[in-house]
Amino acid sequence: MIRVGIDAMGGDYAPKNIVLGAIQAYSRIQSKTRLVLFGDNEQIATLCKDFGFDVAKFDIIHTSQVIEMNDHPAKAFQQKPDSSITVGFGALAKMRIDGFASAGSTGAMLAGAMYTVKAIPGIIRPAIASEYPLLTGGTAIILDVGLNVDCKPDVLYQYGLLGTIYAKHMSGIENPRVALLNIGEEEEKGNLQTKEAHKLMQDTAEYNFVGNIESNHLFSGEIADVIVADGFVGNVVLKQAEAMYALAKRQGIDNEYFNRFNYELYGGTPVLGVNAPIIIGHGASSPKAIENMILQTEHAVQVRLVEKITEALEIE
Amino acid sequence: MIRVGIDAMGGDYAPKNIVLGAIQAYSRIQSKTRLVLFGDNEQIATLCKDFGFDVAKFDIIHTSQVIEMNDHPAKAFQQKPDSSITVGFGALAKMRIDGFASAGSTGAMLAGAMYTVKAIPGIIRPAIASEYPLLTGGTAIILDVGLNVDCKPDVLYQYGLLGTIYAKHMSGIENPRVALLNIGEEEEKGNLQTKEAHKLMQDTAEYNFVGNIESNHLFSGEIADVIVADGFVGNVVLKQAEAMYALAKRQGIDNEYFNRFNYELYGGTPVLGVNAPIIIGHGASSPKAIENMILQTEHAVQVRLVEKITEALEIE
Repeated sequence: MIRVGIDAMGGDYAPKNIVLGAIQAYSRIQSKTRLVLFGDNEQIATLCKDFGFDVAKFDIIHTSQVIEMNDHPAKAFQQKPDSSITVGFGALAKMRIDGFASAGSTGAMLAGAMYTVKAIPGIIRPAIASEYPLLTGGTAIILDVGLNVDCKPDVLYQYGLLGTIYAKHMSGIENPRVALLNIGEEEEKGNLQTKEAHKLMQDTAEYNFVGNIESNHLFSGEIADVIVADGFVGNVVLKQAEAMYALAKRQGIDNEYFNRFNYELYGGTPVLGVNAPIIIGHGASSPKAIENMILQTEHAVQVRLVEKITEALEIE
Repeated sequence: MIRVGIDAMGGDYAPKNIVLGAIQAYSRIQSKTRLVLFGDNEQIATLCKDFGFDVAKFDIIHTSQVIEMNDHPAKAFQQKPDSSITVGFGALAKMRIDGFASAGSTGAMLAGAMYTVKAIPGIIRPAIASEYPLLTGGTAIILDVGLNVDCKPDVLYQYGLLGTIYAKHMSGIENPRVALLNIGEEEEKGNLQTKEAHKLMQDTAEYNFVGNIESNHLFSGEIADVIVADGFVGNVVLKQAEAMYALAKRQGIDNEYFNRFNYELYGGTPVLGVNAPIIIGHGASSPKAIENMILQTEHAVQVRLVEKITEALEIE
């Protein structure tokens, strides 16, 4: 049995959008999967009733506290022991759930990931990753997108491995092409960090390194499936891609490719390199985004993503 | 009299597009401006004849060599003393021209800028800048976009001043709003570099610092007119914006705002912080792009951009 934990109280439109997303996900999950909602028992039951859904189809773990967006994330994680996020991570640590997803406080989710679940042995720094659509169809993954904003070259090297495993098992890409985000295609281009990282990646047998990629080639799909970047640069790229989508919408552009930039389609942002599948959703997550985030978490458990990463590091 | 130097041999479609662009610019420049073309006398004369333009309206400085794209830029600048770029910089150094524009080798142009024209006293590192369109109309300027890929915080601080002077005098913005490109709005956000730069900028009286800007807010125009970034990050942002335009075109999107991302409209990339107006054009420059690059160079001379920067540094 797979037990997917969901923070029912996290996000700008919680618990309503979360419960509705979970109800929608319910019809798409495997028969052996259980959805475990952490949150206010009564509110969840009322919402299920309102939506005509039998609440008994969920497992509910009642929690009495919520980490709010203006709480200090790491402190709140400690000081609100009965918050949906803190209790969720407790369940994850005790393996009562197999993965945990929340559209709530990113900082609290990261605090839980780093201090409760912890990094997989051999991981220098965990990363957060984001999928984005390619013109050729399918998606690429870019990491890090903000967890580690001053990356050493060996960290970038390892992100190539993390991204490879994600792309292979989550996106079903046989031999993912890994590129280093840089400001020129030639190996001698870049800043001190990317020049060193390129040297480390150049002859690796651990993954399929295809060289540097410039940001004007990120979207074609012709070069790479996995984009390795420093968390600062990756975050800038990600937010600029979001801006591109927002601009297109604002301009009334209804285009098949641009529409695929809608975050709702991708679930959430996985935390890679920690000892459990953890997915962080957009604060403003719609029910559809929550539905996809739940399916993404289930999928990570199914493909044994964490075990695949652990095994790859043992071989290393 | 203003004398605008133009490398007639630089660019993928030189000399044809350059000469045609210069002819188009001729009808728009001030009556006291002379366009000085550096290149093959005969080819330029033939092209003028073909286009039905009196070549005597230009000053031509004959040069016999061309720095090709596969030449080593800095070496070629020395080893091809009669190349259009080397001769152009010689004329600039002797003040026989007041500004120089080329769509040829970026590396050779930068070599000329750094070693012949040199940095203005007090400039820590010159920068290259790029304009991009805002939703509110007008443009913002982002710098650096690739010259200085490992910026110290004090360099970023000074880019705020360079950008302010450019935006004020070239774009006519009264009191340009300067923002630091970062991954969060709050002052404590960022990597080591941007956190330190923020501290330096925070209380400056030299320019109108408005705080951090995230890349999803670059285009609205609601926050800033001048975006300060490390050359690595700025280059990534710029190329991603180019990709956005290319994607829109490829998708057949004809939208007023997206169309304004067309590089042809902005002339070229100014080198800021050196002792003369130097503009580097896109290699694939169309005649329209060359025309605008020439007008941009003339404008920089007219508004005394270099003198304004020099004066600001003396006050500092």
